Amino acid sequence: MAVAFSDQVRIVANDSARWDVFARHESDVRWYCRKFSSVYVSASSATIVDEDGREYIDFLSGASALNYGHNPEPIKHAVVRYLSEDGILHALDLHTAAKRDFIAAFCETVLKPRGLGYKLAFTGPTGTNAVELAIKFARHFTQRETVIAFTNAYHGVSLGSLALTGNRSKRAAAGIALPGVARLPYDGYLGDGLDTAALFERLLDDPGSGIDMPAAVILETVQAEGGLNTCSPQWLRRICETSRRHGIITIVDDIQVGCGRTGTFFSFEGMGIEPDIVCLSKSLSGIGQPFSLVLLKPALDCLPPGAHNGTFRGNNLAFVSARAALRYWSDPLFQSCLERLCRTLRDRLDAIARGFSQLHTRVVGRGAILGLKWPDATMANRVSAAAFERGLIIETCGARDEVLKLLPPLTIRDDELESGLQKLEGAIADAAGHATDLIARGQDHE
Amino acid sequence: MAVAFSDQVRIVANDSARWDVFARHESDVRWYCRKFSSVYVSASSATIVDEDGREYIDFLSGASALNYGHNPEPIKHAVVRYLSEDGILHALDLHTAAKRDFIAAFCETVLKPRGLGYKLAFTGPTGTNAVELAIKFARHFTQRETVIAFTNAYHGVSLGSLALTGNRSKRAAAGIALPGVARLPYDGYLGDGLDTAALFERLLDDPGSGIDMPAAVILETVQAEGGLNTCSPQWLRRICETSRRHGIITIVDDIQVGCGRTGTFFSFEGMGIEPDIVCLSKSLSGIGQPFSLVLLKPALDCLPPGAHNGTFRGNNLAFVSARAALRYWSDPLFQSCLERLCRTLRDRLDAIARGFSQLHTRVVGRGAILGLKWPDATMANRVSAAAFERGLIIETCGARDEVLKLLPPLTIRDDELESGLQKLEGAIADAAGHATDLIARGQDHE
Amino acid sequence: MAVAFSDQVRIVANDSARWDVFARHESDVRWYCRKFSSVYVSASSATIVDEDGREYIDFLSGASALNYGHNPEPIKHAVVRYLSEDGILHALDLHTAAKRDFIAAFCETVLKPRGLGYKLAFTGPTGTNAVELAIKFARHFTQRETVIAFTNAYHGVSLGSLALTGNRSKRAAAGIALPGVARLPYDGYLGDGLDTAALFERLLDDPGSGIDMPAAVILETVQAEGGLNTCSPQWLRRICETSRRHGIITIVDDIQVGCGRTGTFFSFEGMGIEPDIVCLSKSLSGIGQPFSLVLLKPALDCLPPGAHNGTFRGNNLAFVSARAALRYWSDPLFQSCLERLCRTLRDRLDAIARGFSQLHTRVVGRGAILGLKWPDATMANRVSAAAFERGLIIETCGARDEVLKLLPPLTIRDDELESGLQKLEGAIADAAGHATDLIARGQDHE
Amino acid sequence: MAVAFSDQVRIVANDSARWDVFARHESDVRWYCRKFSSVYVSASSATIVDEDGREYIDFLSGASALNYGHNPEPIKHAVVRYLSEDGILHALDLHTAAKRDFIAAFCETVLKPRGLGYKLAFTGPTGTNAVELAIKFARHFTQRETVIAFTNAYHGVSLGSLALTGNRSKRAAAGIALPGVARLPYDGYLGDGLDTAALFERLLDDPGSGIDMPAAVILETVQAEGGLNTCSPQWLRRICETSRRHGIITIVDDIQVGCGRTGTFFSFEGMGIEPDIVCLSKSLSGIGQPFSLVLLKPALDCLPPGAHNGTFRGNNLAFVSARAALRYWSDPLFQSCLERLCRTLRDRLDAIARGFSQLHTRVVGRGAILGLKWPDATMANRVSAAAFERGLIIETCGARDEVLKLLPPLTIRDDELESGLQKLEGAIADAAGHATDLIARGQDHE
Repeated sequence: MAVAFSDQVRIVANDSARWDVFARHESDVRWYCRKFSSVYVSASSATIVDEDGREYIDFLSGASALNYGHNPEPIKHAVVRYLSEDGILHALDLHTAAKRDFIAAFCETVLKPRGLGYKLAFTGPTGTNAVELAIKFARHFTQRETVIAFTNAYHGVSLGSLALTGNRSKRAAAGIALPGVARLPYDGYLGDGLDTAALFERLLDDPGSGIDMPAAVILETVQAEGGLNTCSPQWLRRICETSRRHGIITIVDDIQVGCGRTGTFFSFEGMGIEPDIVCLSKSLSGIGQPFSLVLLKPALDCLPPGAHNGTFRGNNLAFVSARAALRYWSDPLFQSCLERLCRTLRDRLDAIARGFSQLHTRVVGRGAILGLKWPDATMANRVSAAAFERGLIIETCGARDEVLKLLPPLTIRDDELESGLQKLEGAIADAAGHATDLIARGQDHE
Repeated sequence: MAVAFSDQVRIVANDSARWDVFARHESDVRWYCRKFSSVYVSASSATIVDEDGREYIDFLSGASALNYGHNPEPIKHAVVRYLSEDGILHALDLHTAAKRDFIAAFCETVLKPRGLGYKLAFTGPTGTNAVELAIKFARHFTQRETVIAFTNAYHGVSLGSLALTGNRSKRAAAGIALPGVARLPYDGYLGDGLDTAALFERLLDDPGSGIDMPAAVILETVQAEGGLNTCSPQWLRRICETSRRHGIITIVDDIQVGCGRTGTFFSFEGMGIEPDIVCLSKSLSGIGQPFSLVLLKPALDCLPPGAHNGTFRGNNLAFVSARAALRYWSDPLFQSCLERLCRTLRDRLDAIARGFSQLHTRVVGRGAILGLKWPDATMANRVSAAAFERGLIIETCGARDEVLKLLPPLTIRDDELESGLQKLEGAIADAAGHATDLIARGQDHE
Repeated sequence: MAVAFSDQVRIVANDSARWDVFARHESDVRWYCRKFSSVYVSASSATIVDEDGREYIDFLSGASALNYGHNPEPIKHAVVRYLSEDGILHALDLHTAAKRDFIAAFCETVLKPRGLGYKLAFTGPTGTNAVELAIKFARHFTQRETVIAFTNAYHGVSLGSLALTGNRSKRAAAGIALPGVARLPYDGYLGDGLDTAALFERLLDDPGSGIDMPAAVILETVQAEGGLNTCSPQWLRRICETSRRHGIITIVDDIQVGCGRTGTFFSFEGMGIEPDIVCLSKSLSGIGQPFSLVLLKPALDCLPPGAHNGTFRGNNLAFVSARAALRYWSDPLFQSCLERLCRTLRDRLDAIARGFSQLHTRVVGRGAILGLKWPDATMANRVSAAAFERGLIIETCGARDEVLKLLPPLTIRDDELESGLQKLEGAIADAAGHATDLIARGQDHE
Repeated sequence: MAVAFSDQVRIVANDSARWDVFARHESDVRWYCRKFSSVYVSASSATIVDEDGREYIDFLSGASALNYGHNPEPIKHAVVRYLSEDGILHALDLHTAAKRDFIAAFCETVLKPRGLGYKLAFTGPTGTNAVELAIKFARHFTQRETVIAFTNAYHGVSLGSLALTGNRSKRAAAGIALPGVARLPYDGYLGDGLDTAALFERLLDDPGSGIDMPAAVILETVQAEGGLNTCSPQWLRRICETSRRHGIITIVDDIQVGCGRTGTFFSFEGMGIEPDIVCLSKSLSGIGQPFSLVLLKPALDCLPPGAHNGTFRGNNLAFVSARAALRYWSDPLFQSCLERLCRTLRDRLDAIARGFSQLHTRVVGRGAILGLKWPDATMANRVSAAAFERGLIIETCGARDEVLKLLPPLTIRDDELESGLQKLEGAIADAAGHATDLIARGQDHE
């Protein structure tokens, strides 16, 4: 089965009507379907099945929206029961029992054990809406406008979030200038020689720097779309300390790397900081339901009632599934399995990088969000394509698609993991032996 | 049971721990729960039940997100079956059978009978995300920046959409200027004497007007949050014709008043226009699932693959429920019931307005989105509060909360409708007889 | 001598090296030289002489920068004397005797007799710089951002002022969005039927209008570039009263129509308003020296020392010449001559409009800034070109160049005025008899 | 005579009516007059005289607007003669003989010998207007929006230029966000260890950097207001080469350091670059007349006729004086004197820095724009104040006023120079011995 990167090619190569509906009626802006081109039907754990019955190991996991795998039984069970009882599904921001239970469980399971006293703000159930609300809180509270964002950041594509996102082609889609943001280099952006937190500090301390005193600084502790760049705890603390000194709100966007992806619930645990605001979404609902959450220190809770709204900010099915998902975090077995997964992934990838040392790849990332960084996009895309032929869905990331990103479910079964890693090794071998380069794709992805 | 407009009051009046979780842990930005203060558990058709077993007739319907009522059996059935089969739930924008089936059904049931050839773009599953994408298409396609929006418009609260929204306090929450929008008066804004479409035309024709040639004009045919202001077909056609002449993209935001709310699937049917872009959300999924859709003429499909993304743009549960909901539109009985509902609502409200003529109220709106407009917010809020005491949930709208807005499910049972209307009449009588005014709320709502 | 509208044409028609320097070395953005294409050498009163010795009557007057004519003797005398005494010419904003004398004279001659208590702020010596400072004062004082400007306004072309200017092609030159401005229709923009001040009031009173509460409203009492549109005192008062009620700063841009152009020193005298801020420039120096001035009510003087600067804000030659020019205003003869000029211009233009009634022209403007408005640009440009051939420099204005604008010096001699008006009548006759239309210019002017 | 830093103090200390006019009638935004508080009357060469007959040596030179000194005889002579002949003074952008002569002389004297083929664009006669036009050309030509400006840059205070300027308090005066600019660290901003041109290059090469592809980069080769920071030729070339590779227009703002200030006419001579656009003003007119000029490569001359205008863009007195000033540049004696001046200044300042080594001052700057940089503002302000008491006008600069800036006229007589330098040495000695610190001023300056 040939891998094709555009529907045009696909339609020529395969005159089945199978994709006609998409090609004829869906906007060309669609993306992943071009790379992993099949029609999927069902899924369970880390395994997806297409309509021909073919199975795929999923190392994409909904871009980390499916940390507990596809259709996790306990969560699905809770959802079906709620439906069967005519539980209220859509409630705007009315009080519901499902919401209260989620809030209570989140406080009990997540916040209290970590000594965190955040308040919860529910917004439209997407990551970008959470980021939009976070920067509203920061700007409204500080009465300042500028938000500092970093190189290769990804925070969403609605205008407020897109202004923070680094990707030039996604920014260009706005068709309008994206104001209110100052861009600074992320940790390690200029190599080890330069501490970019020192630049951050200098620019804020210098009244002539041209950086207006910011409302907030927003960052990912692992830049998931940006190429699995990580920051050191030292860098992070210096950013936070400088911010505190200037009254700048610190926002951690934990949408992709929170909910356990780095090995702990929040990605910043153990790094010695306590952000003022945290954005969560993706895996929060536990079952792929749209859901998002802004955590904020009570002192920042400055917006008047009704100042921010959203039709689906009370997705009660998500309250139910998210509460069920929190039970993983009270289960010591889940924690130890997660630790083991992180170790296994790191060990196996290290071995792969060593085994294919002639390909100049190195392991990047942290916890269960790891990748192989190649000199450029060619090999990363070639491996992704070869893996798909072998029945493994694995994406690339980075500003130039130069990183192959592994995002298996955190609850992946050992056999699935093993199968996926073997397919990956095979795909690298395929790609390395490949006689001719695939045509450069010249496009970016999420 | 006392009606309270703030948690502070509530907590004083009622020392139950019931709301403690919300008061202590949820952000103060929450809104509806302050007006309809109970904890809801289950719901069916137009009836909601709180945890004390008390029943309420729902004339709010999730701000028109529940046009088919709560937990409609055929839709719920489809959803549960999909879950039970381990149907793939979250798929980014990968092709899935559920998505294909929805697209095909939407084309067959909605577009084809109406002679419309739109393409479908899926975005983050909220209304504001749909609006954000719509204006991206328009700006990118025209290479212009300005979007014309109207007085009292509501299009969402992420920065791109918020720039289009008229409400001053929602705008202020942004804490930053909202660029790229020129504001013009909606139909009837200055009374019958002035055709505001003539101003629209003059400003665009005049090279010295100071209005840069716009990318798009966006409008609601009924301004649902803005006070149930309606526009005439003549006005709408003049706006569209002027726009066409200048290459301006016309966008109809049918998020709140589409999906049947005005009596037809699209609110603009029969008005003699065909917008370039249409935004849908709210009732599209049929069961309160987050879902949204941008319809666009194929020529406008200009964004490169991947230029706009969103984690939850493939909410397959919503594809399934939305497809099930489309079946209503092939059912002649649904159509005739809807027409009858529209007539009944209008007749009953006309009678109420006549009956309470000393209160200077008049009926506003269109189809099944009707309201009573009062001289100011006092009566509207008083009636809403009195209705809630009688077991009817009914909201206010308008820049000053001066309109009582009726949004019953389109599938409301006759007994529910009758009960709701009687409670409404009773509430008006209560409010009219009320000796002292409630304190003006001084806040806005969605 | 042929009139040419572009250097290309000119160069073909006339292979003299005379214009080579300009054509080869000066940016194509130059404008007036294309219409009144000669090389000028000297000037006195209302008469300009080119290098062939040809004389022209000047009804352009430096776009009202030469209200006292070219090289007025008393002013020139003061300037030469100051130079001969090595008077300090450039002093940043250091105190100088010349500056003190100007300030004292301006207070004594202009402000005190009119009961005005403005403070004076000196800025970079151009009109646009004055406008930039005016809106800084307003935004900084109110802590609001939006400034309301009107259709067909002209306030300059640096980015802050250009955002206020209506002309679409000048705005396009910015190559960037021009934020912070809301545009409203000027008095009479939609015909007599509509009071646009009512729209202004409604938009500000309505919290859902989408117009954020503005910092300021800026206007010209006669829109000099915009087509000699005038506003009524009633309209002006309603704008100012509404503004006062909302704490909005009122700014009158009197750069082109102040300094006597409408018959009084300020153009708003006798209209029942006292603006919060007034911008002056153009004729303020009396002799064409770059100079500008912002008058502001003392309570608005909120910018900290040094917050706004500019190298040439202390053009002492201009202080000297401006002070000399103020002496005209203590001279009763000047006042009576000015009144007579205004009457004469109006009478003669009325007669011309009547005489050429078949051409559908009408007289527009006020005081000594009057014009003939034609159905479109054709006749206005044709008359301007024919007038130039007869030795009269007279410009067009309006968004479509449809108005012929008369701006004779206020001190024009009777013989010069008579000569100019006769040339004008002749030019109209020429143009009316013209067999073929000149090619539409399709461009705007200042 | 006491030095006072505010009028309030002044008025208490000195009840003369001398400053009353300023204190009562001039806006508080005035600046220099607070530091060098006297009333000046006349000036010649580097000597200014106040109304008490006291003489001051001028090491400020109108912030480099008086490079040829006050009232230079040959220039003044040309001006007076032009006035006496009724030369046309104000001509908008009509062709005049004075303008033609200036253009021809500028091409002949400045451009041709340096092999430069720039076209000339005349704009409103201030530096900020020149910068506004330069960025219009760049944005319009490239159809991009972002302009890169550097830390501690100063480019003016109208909104377009102010967005480029680094000073936080000047920026705050705008009262509105300043969009369209990305800020990068100037050469040496983070110490010698880091090549900030590498960061510039990396950010532009990286499609995920978040820096939208810029229209232009604007820089000063010596940051005159920003603290006399200089860039190396290597850094400058790397900036220009990277820019060229990405189609980014390079703009050198030579307003303060051009016209000979660094020892050559353009400050970038000998550095191996040829900017696409150069902004000139300040000393260009030679006698303090408002005047400015944008030089641009012919290919960039993209604005349509009339797209940028300005009442005083044809200040013919400045054409005459500027042409007279150009004669200095054909005079070998002027060149050798200038070289000597640069050497003398450097030698003397080096000696001073050595002599006062305990004060931790070091020499900064280049050519004839040199300064003494102190650890903080205290000494710089103290020396400036002590110098003024001794009859020397010398300003501070830098984001924190930590640099004492020497800007003597380039044509200063030896005796004046010697006197000024002796006063400076004396003032340093005074300040060093000063028992108590002056109150920190806490304000910035131009």
